[in-house]
Amino acid sequence: MKGPFSFQLSATDGAARTGRIATGRGEIRTPAFMPVGTAATVKAMYPGQVRELGADVVLGNVYHLMLRPGAERIAALGGLHRFMNWPHPILTDSGGFQVMSLAKLRRIDEHGVTFQSHLDGSRHELTPERSVEIQALLGSDIQMQLDECVRMPCTPEEAERAMRLSLRWAERSKAAFSPVPGRALFGIVQGADVPDLRRASARGLVDMGFDGYAVGGLAVGEPQEVMMAMLDVVVPLLPADRPRYLMGVGTPDDIIGAVSRGIDMFDCVMPTRAGRHGLAYTRHGKVNLKNARHADDARPLDETSSCEAARIYSRAYLHHLVKAGEILGMMLLTWVNLAYYQELMAGLRGAVAEGRLDAFMAQTRLGWSKADES
Amino acid sequence: MKGPFSFQLSATDGAARTGRIATGRGEIRTPAFMPVGTAATVKAMYPGQVRELGADVVLGNVYHLMLRPGAERIAALGGLHRFMNWPHPILTDSGGFQVMSLAKLRRIDEHGVTFQSHLDGSRHELTPERSVEIQALLGSDIQMQLDECVRMPCTPEEAERAMRLSLRWAERSKAAFSPVPGRALFGIVQGADVPDLRRASARGLVDMGFDGYAVGGLAVGEPQEVMMAMLDVVVPLLPADRPRYLMGVGTPDDIIGAVSRGIDMFDCVMPTRAGRHGLAYTRHGKVNLKNARHADDARPLDETSSCEAARIYSRAYLHHLVKAGEILGMMLLTWVNLAYYQELMAGLRGAVAEGRLDAFMAQTRLGWSKADES
Repeated sequence: MKGPFSFQLSATDGAARTGRIATGRGEIRTPAFMPVGTAATVKAMYPGQVRELGADVVLGNVYHLMLRPGAERIAALGGLHRFMNWPHPILTDSGGFQVMSLAKLRRIDEHGVTFQSHLDGSRHELTPERSVEIQALLGSDIQMQLDECVRMPCTPEEAERAMRLSLRWAERSKAAFSPVPGRALFGIVQGADVPDLRRASARGLVDMGFDGYAVGGLAVGEPQEVMMAMLDVVVPLLPADRPRYLMGVGTPDDIIGAVSRGIDMFDCVMPTRAGRHGLAYTRHGKVNLKNARHADDARPLDETSSCEAARIYSRAYLHHLVKAGEILGMMLLTWVNLAYYQELMAGLRGAVAEGRLDAFMAQTRLGWSKADES
Repeated sequence: MKGPFSFQLSATDGAARTGRIATGRGEIRTPAFMPVGTAATVKAMYPGQVRELGADVVLGNVYHLMLRPGAERIAALGGLHRFMNWPHPILTDSGGFQVMSLAKLRRIDEHGVTFQSHLDGSRHELTPERSVEIQALLGSDIQMQLDECVRMPCTPEEAERAMRLSLRWAERSKAAFSPVPGRALFGIVQGADVPDLRRASARGLVDMGFDGYAVGGLAVGEPQEVMMAMLDVVVPLLPADRPRYLMGVGTPDDIIGAVSRGIDMFDCVMPTRAGRHGLAYTRHGKVNLKNARHADDARPLDETSSCEAARIYSRAYLHHLVKAGEILGMMLLTWVNLAYYQELMAGLRGAVAEGRLDAFMAQTRLGWSKADES
């Protein structure tokens, strides 16, 4: 443990910011994209590779890890960092989101949520206190409060009920969190697509005081305009000297839109999941390698990329690997995608630092629009 | 292309030999293990990794490649080496073995074999001439003649019929092969488990004269003693100045037994396939990572290994990845296994060079016997 958790802004450009989060396990340059390491692995990548691409932090999922291999087991083995050979910062979610999306027979009440494992049907309980305990067992550098994330569309009544419950759980999470130097607990703003609920949630959390603030309950099916509108409502209410994390987002375009609105941190399965399904993210936009038009294409995905996988393998070869279901295809495309996401974040950090974010965004979007020609 | 195909012996120890095969794309240190790159990829490995582990040559499968993506397509894309980013030697099989084991509705006659693709049912023909043509299109450094490999047990009549046909196909393969400097064509000894048939096959091939000689039709279900007995029969009939390749073999114990009998080259899916199914090959023998006894074991597979995957990941983590079906588990165990196989080959080469093969074999087998304690 090197020192306290802190956040230093180094530059702003409009609402956008760039800076550094200090944790006990090292710094996170913001805006940051966190590759998702669901089950203690960023799928189809060696941890050293993930680091080399410029990831300062990865995300671990409480839901998956509590079920398999178990939080107490990971703690006995020295914690999640040692377990997965990732000695750098790890942010863990609270488990709530995946209980809602994956578990069977879940039941939610004031106390917490009980559910059956999607793996073996075993019964489990997750409360704000247990989630914080699990995240401590894992050794997480940045913990998230347990919250209830509702799917949209939903009624305002349902959105308010879940938001109020999440606020009460935020308070219990904070009470249960044992501050360790260099570690942090973030609150999560809920409230669906209702501006007044979002405002009430943000104000409630800021009154409690957290090390950072996440915006949850977005990227759950709503149009991008709704996501951006909610950020326009919420971000101005969050303290400037704390990191802001937009959970589960998103496409490259979502990310630059959110950075321009003052978001500092992102996580999303998109680059890794898409990579396992034949889809590449590049400077030139998305390329679907399943498409037969690549079968005889000797060109690489991007000959100017810093990523070897984008530079030295032909589209024809990648197409072949994807069609044949070869693991190497998933490895190469996941690599390409995470490289592109990290390259995008580095570009955003540089652009904000130099006060040219608008030009960077326009240039980046122009590049994507050439996808069909590439 | 650097020079002619050649084989230089540098030392012998009993029947065992060590040396170097020169090809147009570089040298192959023998005894050599060739990782199998079935569909233009050594499964779950980056080509650079395969090279770093010490592989001088990989194997490509004509059957798979002719069906997908197609030999003419690979040729148009610059050949198999460029396609799969492996600029080092490649040995290709003839396609015959996999037609027999994978294809549907195959029919074999004097002319060749017609079959239906296991992928889409499309009809194809493979003749000695077409196999050589496909291997040339791929740009193979070491080509294999088309042969007929019979399953054991089989009648002596069936074994003789297939062996005689394979001899006639050897002659046609040789006639069809266009010698290119640095490239080679190997004949394949058949004859099942019948010593006289094996001798007749070897003599017939040696009379024709090939750049190297393979022993085929072994490791197809027979006991290890039969395999070794057939090598005792065949190897003395093969010219000392040509490489000898035991096809599809095998376990580490098969390999050291065959090296001690004068075999120079091996290929086998075992290390890669086992790696995808939770099984590790190590100095201490096989370790089945699926076994629950590894769930809390913080020790690595082999802390003295030169392979990072064997050294820095705990058995508990590998067990977790295997149980969770994570791609990284396959990647790490394939890496461990290929590293161990290459380490074994390097050990065998050193032992033969220094005239201490017996001691090396005894020590290696002693190491394996400790598997249950590890």
